[in-house]
Amino acid sequence: MQAEKTIIGFIGTGVMGQGMIRNLLKAGFPVNIYTRTKAKADALISEGAEWKDSVAEVSAASDVVITIVGYPKDVEEVYLENGILAHAKEGTVVIDMTTSSPSLAERIYQEAKAKGIAALDAPVSGGDTGAKNGKLSIMVGGEEAAFHQIRPVFEAMGENIVYQGGAGRGQHTKMTNQILIAGGMLGLCEAFAYADRAGLDVEQVLKSVATGAAGSFSLSNLGPRILKGDFAPGFYVKHFIKDMTIALDEAEKMGLLTPGLALAKQRYEELAEMGFENDGTQALYKLYQK
Amino acid sequence: MQAEKTIIGFIGTGVMGQGMIRNLLKAGFPVNIYTRTKAKADALISEGAEWKDSVAEVSAASDVVITIVGYPKDVEEVYLENGILAHAKEGTVVIDMTTSSPSLAERIYQEAKAKGIAALDAPVSGGDTGAKNGKLSIMVGGEEAAFHQIRPVFEAMGENIVYQGGAGRGQHTKMTNQILIAGGMLGLCEAFAYADRAGLDVEQVLKSVATGAAGSFSLSNLGPRILKGDFAPGFYVKHFIKDMTIALDEAEKMGLLTPGLALAKQRYEELAEMGFENDGTQALYKLYQK
Repeated sequence: MQAEKTIIGFIGTGVMGQGMIRNLLKAGFPVNIYTRTKAKADALISEGAEWKDSVAEVSAASDVVITIVGYPKDVEEVYLENGILAHAKEGTVVIDMTTSSPSLAERIYQEAKAKGIAALDAPVSGGDTGAKNGKLSIMVGGEEAAFHQIRPVFEAMGENIVYQGGAGRGQHTKMTNQILIAGGMLGLCEAFAYADRAGLDVEQVLKSVATGAAGSFSLSNLGPRILKGDFAPGFYVKHFIKDMTIALDEAEKMGLLTPGLALAKQRYEELAEMGFENDGTQALYKLYQK
Repeated sequence: MQAEKTIIGFIGTGVMGQGMIRNLLKAGFPVNIYTRTKAKADALISEGAEWKDSVAEVSAASDVVITIVGYPKDVEEVYLENGILAHAKEGTVVIDMTTSSPSLAERIYQEAKAKGIAALDAPVSGGDTGAKNGKLSIMVGGEEAAFHQIRPVFEAMGENIVYQGGAGRGQHTKMTNQILIAGGMLGLCEAFAYADRAGLDVEQVLKSVATGAAGSFSLSNLGPRILKGDFAPGFYVKHFIKDMTIALDEAEKMGLLTPGLALAKQRYEELAEMGFENDGTQALYKLYQK
């Protein structure tokens, strides 16, 4: 697959999409873009992306269509409601990189397949920094042949690119990632609240605990932000709630009880109700402050 | 402080104590030992440790008395019930390295101080491997002068030796460590159960999630054991329940609600009731299996 000959369509130019589009352009791919608020695309257009006036136009004019939008309902709209699947050519590969519902990914896969379109679900982790630096972790579900065919597209955006199996398996892998984080954030915020309330010097405590059995990415990266009172998003509370809602729904469908995940979701909802939905996930600490 | 001139008394020759005593001997300290079951001390005696017939004898014959026993009630008995504090010489430094109650550590500190004895609370992390290799993380509370005075004793047993403040602060730091682990274990076991139930190849999932934002020591070290069905203890379920019980009691005393910790403790108690109290903490996964 040659970059210059594979035209990418990209829908969604939020903070993640912007970094990913820039890396696709840098790798030599022509990129058609569309997003609901055109102003968000202006900088990208001046950098070489080509504006299209609708989802339909992007879909019709591209060989690979990538989406990274907000919520599962946005994914559903952009693919299924007179959207991508209605307008993409046969042989197109469509890739949803939104963190979204595994069940919806399977539905899109089936509807796409009926039209001769290959659909991959490929959510990411690594945040805006990973998107900007082309160092995302990309978890891919769908048909393996399509995965191998468009691998250079993924390689322009990410580093840790792993095929996880059939349709929905990319999303399930991301859900696994989020369930791990949910438990970790409960532990992190309760532990810091405990240490603070016990009168410990929490920076000093980090020296004892960060490198041993209690060590984690969250502890080393979000712990110091909590200590500085820095609750700015990295990853938004409202998006984490969306992800945990999907994970909990899927777990219920599978008959799996996940009380830790349920508790984490409930605590983050309390936090959002207090008005902190646009903070970063480390703001869970606020629930434990006096 | 010269190793040859400082006589150590060591009470408790379980799997942790054995490794620690061997490292003290290796560093040149004479070590008096006592434990309830003498058979457990035989190998150590043949390697140079000196057997004493009671807590009283060890205490009277040593400059520094170290304990690592089972539960807070054992700590209370060995220090306060006609034990170490009744028999140690004025000027002795006593160090409890059991993971035990911060409140009890403060009580021992006060009673010791009244007799001219310096008490440190210095729980560890790093497990039997850390004890054997002299690589424990040691979290120390008590008077700073005593900490500096006996630092070479700690250095014979550990690597990451951090003074955390006044009496009880070593234990509070260890509780912080255990609260971090409690949340992490909930996340780990629920995430693995989710991934398995969703039909993912969990080893493949680890490739996507272990090095990113969901990464942790528990994930990288206990995750692969779960995949192999290896539930042997590293760290016993029953001991983790003890630690969480202490942490939850202390949190309640401070008026701090820690629902994540409370849930983790409740889940581990269910696991113990099922007969798995002598498994390793990764056995929490069993609660989520079909």
